[in-house]
Amino acid sequence: MPIRVLLLGYGLVSAHFHVGIERIKLGEVEPYGVPLARHRMSHRVEDIEVVGAVDVDVGKVGRSAYDVARDSIGDSVPVPSTLRDVEITMGLHMGSLRGLPMRAEGLEERFGIEGGLTKFFEYLDSVRPDVVINVITTEDASPFGNVDALRNSISRGSCSAGQIYAYAAATWRRGIAFVNVIPTPLARDHAFVDLFSGSRSLVLGDDGATGATPLTADLLEHLAERNRRVLSIAQFNIGGNTDFLALTMPERNAMKEATKASVVEDVLGYDVPHYIRPTGYLQPLGDKKFVSMHVSWRTFNGLEDEMVVNLRINDSPALAGLLVDLARVGRALVEREQYGTAYPVNAFFMKSPGPPGSKNVARVLAYERLVKWLAQIGVIH
Amino acid sequence: MPIRVLLLGYGLVSAHFHVGIERIKLGEVEPYGVPLARHRMSHRVEDIEVVGAVDVDVGKVGRSAYDVARDSIGDSVPVPSTLRDVEITMGLHMGSLRGLPMRAEGLEERFGIEGGLTKFFEYLDSVRPDVVINVITTEDASPFGNVDALRNSISRGSCSAGQIYAYAAATWRRGIAFVNVIPTPLARDHAFVDLFSGSRSLVLGDDGATGATPLTADLLEHLAERNRRVLSIAQFNIGGNTDFLALTMPERNAMKEATKASVVEDVLGYDVPHYIRPTGYLQPLGDKKFVSMHVSWRTFNGLEDEMVVNLRINDSPALAGLLVDLARVGRALVEREQYGTAYPVNAFFMKSPGPPGSKNVARVLAYERLVKWLAQIGVIH
Amino acid sequence: MPIRVLLLGYGLVSAHFHVGIERIKLGEVEPYGVPLARHRMSHRVEDIEVVGAVDVDVGKVGRSAYDVARDSIGDSVPVPSTLRDVEITMGLHMGSLRGLPMRAEGLEERFGIEGGLTKFFEYLDSVRPDVVINVITTEDASPFGNVDALRNSISRGSCSAGQIYAYAAATWRRGIAFVNVIPTPLARDHAFVDLFSGSRSLVLGDDGATGATPLTADLLEHLAERNRRVLSIAQFNIGGNTDFLALTMPERNAMKEATKASVVEDVLGYDVPHYIRPTGYLQPLGDKKFVSMHVSWRTFNGLEDEMVVNLRINDSPALAGLLVDLARVGRALVEREQYGTAYPVNAFFMKSPGPPGSKNVARVLAYERLVKWLAQIGVIH
Amino acid sequence: MPIRVLLLGYGLVSAHFHVGIERIKLGEVEPYGVPLARHRMSHRVEDIEVVGAVDVDVGKVGRSAYDVARDSIGDSVPVPSTLRDVEITMGLHMGSLRGLPMRAEGLEERFGIEGGLTKFFEYLDSVRPDVVINVITTEDASPFGNVDALRNSISRGSCSAGQIYAYAAATWRRGIAFVNVIPTPLARDHAFVDLFSGSRSLVLGDDGATGATPLTADLLEHLAERNRRVLSIAQFNIGGNTDFLALTMPERNAMKEATKASVVEDVLGYDVPHYIRPTGYLQPLGDKKFVSMHVSWRTFNGLEDEMVVNLRINDSPALAGLLVDLARVGRALVEREQYGTAYPVNAFFMKSPGPPGSKNVARVLAYERLVKWLAQIGVIH
Repeated sequence: MPIRVLLLGYGLVSAHFHVGIERIKLGEVEPYGVPLARHRMSHRVEDIEVVGAVDVDVGKVGRSAYDVARDSIGDSVPVPSTLRDVEITMGLHMGSLRGLPMRAEGLEERFGIEGGLTKFFEYLDSVRPDVVINVITTEDASPFGNVDALRNSISRGSCSAGQIYAYAAATWRRGIAFVNVIPTPLARDHAFVDLFSGSRSLVLGDDGATGATPLTADLLEHLAERNRRVLSIAQFNIGGNTDFLALTMPERNAMKEATKASVVEDVLGYDVPHYIRPTGYLQPLGDKKFVSMHVSWRTFNGLEDEMVVNLRINDSPALAGLLVDLARVGRALVEREQYGTAYPVNAFFMKSPGPPGSKNVARVLAYERLVKWLAQIGVIH
Repeated sequence: MPIRVLLLGYGLVSAHFHVGIERIKLGEVEPYGVPLARHRMSHRVEDIEVVGAVDVDVGKVGRSAYDVARDSIGDSVPVPSTLRDVEITMGLHMGSLRGLPMRAEGLEERFGIEGGLTKFFEYLDSVRPDVVINVITTEDASPFGNVDALRNSISRGSCSAGQIYAYAAATWRRGIAFVNVIPTPLARDHAFVDLFSGSRSLVLGDDGATGATPLTADLLEHLAERNRRVLSIAQFNIGGNTDFLALTMPERNAMKEATKASVVEDVLGYDVPHYIRPTGYLQPLGDKKFVSMHVSWRTFNGLEDEMVVNLRINDSPALAGLLVDLARVGRALVEREQYGTAYPVNAFFMKSPGPPGSKNVARVLAYERLVKWLAQIGVIH
Repeated sequence: MPIRVLLLGYGLVSAHFHVGIERIKLGEVEPYGVPLARHRMSHRVEDIEVVGAVDVDVGKVGRSAYDVARDSIGDSVPVPSTLRDVEITMGLHMGSLRGLPMRAEGLEERFGIEGGLTKFFEYLDSVRPDVVINVITTEDASPFGNVDALRNSISRGSCSAGQIYAYAAATWRRGIAFVNVIPTPLARDHAFVDLFSGSRSLVLGDDGATGATPLTADLLEHLAERNRRVLSIAQFNIGGNTDFLALTMPERNAMKEATKASVVEDVLGYDVPHYIRPTGYLQPLGDKKFVSMHVSWRTFNGLEDEMVVNLRINDSPALAGLLVDLARVGRALVEREQYGTAYPVNAFFMKSPGPPGSKNVARVLAYERLVKWLAQIGVIH
Repeated sequence: MPIRVLLLGYGLVSAHFHVGIERIKLGEVEPYGVPLARHRMSHRVEDIEVVGAVDVDVGKVGRSAYDVARDSIGDSVPVPSTLRDVEITMGLHMGSLRGLPMRAEGLEERFGIEGGLTKFFEYLDSVRPDVVINVITTEDASPFGNVDALRNSISRGSCSAGQIYAYAAATWRRGIAFVNVIPTPLARDHAFVDLFSGSRSLVLGDDGATGATPLTADLLEHLAERNRRVLSIAQFNIGGNTDFLALTMPERNAMKEATKASVVEDVLGYDVPHYIRPTGYLQPLGDKKFVSMHVSWRTFNGLEDEMVVNLRINDSPALAGLLVDLARVGRALVEREQYGTAYPVNAFFMKSPGPPGSKNVARVLAYERLVKWLAQIGVIH
């Protein structure tokens, strides 16, 4: 039974997700980077089918996923011809690309908010997704707190693109799994958790846990379990993809910084002077970011140790690999009537796990608990 | 109720253990680097009392622990005057310092094997330890397999220093906890596990898990849980203390390499080309070793990522911090009639956990299981 | 023949300079970190005598250099009692500490600009320096371009602290060597070069070349000489001293960034996408900063290589070591009637070498040329 | 006017050299990694023509360079069809591949020493090289000291492959440039320097300076010029090509270690505890080696700093790029009657520069002197 997936934002992550899924079907690559591929699950990786994709970059809208993926990632991986079947369709903009060097246009700019939403519902009707994945560019957004406040803001058009997409998905029809891997607070906004719960749907989020943050969580847990007293943490990130470009804009950067830094006190149990943030944009690095981390701690008998970690990692494929599981798990949970949000999933897959008030734990513990829970409810066996 | 501890080998680790314990009693330092100090335990750190210490370095034998510790670690930490109460006494040699640049003499060289053992039993009678900690220099040794073979070899003097010390402790009297933090196979030799079990005693071991190996285990677990396919692992260590000097001798190095490399397949579930070994001796680095690690893996969509970890860590204090817990837990287990060996303890604290045939697991998981078990049997609450 | 030195700003660099000089005189340390100490020079390191020091931090003014140095660096090095002979005196503020968390007051705030300058001239008369070293906190300042514009601004009080100090030194009397190791443009402002030249004096500057920048210059030269095509450069700095704190303020940071980044095109001969800047403040790192650098390049046959450099360096002692030579060379040049500024000195010792329009070259080449020139004019033999 | 080049040993370096040259001719790549390509030289890169190649690996002999290059480097770069014109011919073995996992056979094994040499002379007659480049696998060899000893050993077949090749080239005919980029002592053996000098020919060597060694030289020079006292140097190398495999054999490793370590005292002027050696073989790293270096030093006021450098570099292309210049410069020097050997060239391009007794200097200085000298004698303008 296929899982029909709609992609919101057809940037590098969506392209790698789409291409990777198709290459796995073709037997060209193994499902490396897909955490739960080590387990037998109710839904196979090959069950995923990308049925639609929206974007607001006028350079992408109207072209085939094949052409867009070739332009963006064609230098590093072969793009299967099956991507010709999906066309990038115009989505909702809400200013989400404002300030970035691409020309953008959204349905609401053509048809007004209400008209734009209507168009988007029509699109949902046509592609009939089981899972909607939000992987648009990092945007500035605040939680609404309750459903009434949310509905009011939507009707005035006073919300972000991620929020209006989530609203649309939740109200379109029952049984949707919405996966949010950007920092916009959805799974940690009571408004959205209640909205999805009310429509017998599910929202997973927020901010996919790739890169340095989950590694930092596990390294800090490693230190904490030896009762080493962490003295300072510095972590730099630099990359050349659109997300790093967006993060050079202060308000977008602030969104990201908050989700990154919360891990420290959550894992250690005390706060530590730290400098953890997306730091810079350097175009030639492309999608392969460079991370440098320095951690110092006090060890036995009052002495001081230190560790430096340097990473060179493909940013988008790492997130794309998580999306494969999030789509499968999201669908399986809805089928098992797990509505609202699902902390055990978010705790492993997300930097800022919902529901509101949730804590970060070391990923290795979150993983063990997730696998146990998924086995209990019959998603993996 | 104090825990009476006897130290076998009074090198840097013993000195840091001894000094650190006394400084904690004086309130000069916090018990950082002592993993279980975050929990309430049946025995407090301050309950530990070093009642004796043996060595075979003629430059140490007959001097006070205070003088020896001042010479070895006095530049980096203040040495409390309470160390004057312990004198370094001559122990058993069995060639354990052969080839190293210090003059050594052991009881068996003066009195023969039997006479030497008798002298050592007299010493045990005089200091009456609850816990015996083996932290002599890394030596070449093989498991005996069964108690008869062990007894035969001991009577012929055909065994290592670590082995004869463990034999002596097990046969001296009941209720001893023997802690082995060097690679010599004791907790993973059926001969010793049976011997200790038979005398209602306990052996914990082997090879204390400090430095790069437990970190490697946790990093590999981190990768495994994301189903990233590890392609290669290189790990270099270099330091300037006696243990690194000893490891420049091929047969000692081989002992260490085996305990380090076993972690790879245990954690990943498959073998990977790796180069993991204690690599070199560089005197000016002293006790603060330098570790460099390179790991590469395949991520989603067939691409390759890599990580470099560089550590600068105080080698001996890290192990000394573990000894604080091993002494406390060892004593508490004997009081709770847990004889033979204790895998949950070894799995977290040791590089090559006994009993024979045991596997390495990610430390973070071992820790969670250890804490749960210790709570169940009432050691921590 | 002693060299009488006046220190402007008595922070970590001045304290290390002062303490280091006195410890060298006492035979406690070797003159490591003093580049030209390998050569015989007309003036010995021991000839340097600190005769005065000014600051505007009210927590320092009126106290002895000994007390202030003990507070700031007494944990890492012993402070000789000879520092009791120097009292920290109130200097000119001009808002140079504005926004930083210390209470500041300057002579001009008490006596007006003209009165303040008069007081400062009186102070110069009393301490009679041969060399004045400007090592106040990084400030925001622009070049004046010509002496008239400079005089006008000074009379209106519209200049920075570094500029008014330099003006005062140049107009006080002939034969002064003024050493500027902060980014304020003095040696690369025609106004100051002409002013010093006119008073038969010398200004050396700007921005002392310690830390990552001179190393970057030499690494880039290394690549350039192999015709490796540099593709990208990322460089992060993080530290916990006052200078890093000051650099968290955007306008001060911009001053520093410009002097750091200019090295790339100067050395390579072409521009490269780069991210080079003082990045963050992390208090526990103290004066020992952490630097991480990533450089990638194209090698033969179209392939790509990369290098990561991680530094842990004592920030202030590195600069203090250069000051020892700058004081000696500055004095020696004035004695040899080398007025205005001296490019061969600046090219090696400064990040932004004056006079205006000068280029950065690889330090190793600058060093060779400097040594040759100093030998020609008889400063070293 | 073309430069006819014969390659001894058709491994990765030869393949990259051959392919790179042809791709430059085709305009596919720039001559990056070719140091002197920044200057106008008497001979252009495009003048180089590979006219022959010998090897003793039976898996290569008799096949076209195109096929062999495709097998070895075809995954990373496209191989031009012009390589079909060169056939890999059987060379002299002398046990140079002994112990390595490939089947080898050399002319002397078929025809005896004298017969083998005759065959090789015939081959030289047929391909008529101007430049012979020795890039066979690292071998164990000692200098002869004088020409008579050399001739005696050759006639008895008691010499290495590199030595017999050099002997053959020197005695074949006048005006040959022989380039030796492996550690075998040729340019630093009086026997060979005299032999080449006597036949109005030139030998350049020994051991091409790529990778960590020249970088170490420049970093140490950087420290020396600031009079920082180096305390320790650790350097690890690990890679997966045949050369690293060969270096796991102790006697080959010793050859390499000597050429690497000599740089320390040559540049610093004093010896320092160091651990610098080719360390390990890790097949998945392939030709892209990993280098980790730790250097510590004493800075001003007695404090200690440290630096860690991690490199990920394509091993063979780096050396291939140097060969392009060595071929051009070698030919140009012979034309200008510079016989014997040429220290200014060796000082920049080689790890162990000949003639015997020569010192290593920082590469950046060697480069400046080389360029000056080549300009004087009209090779570059």
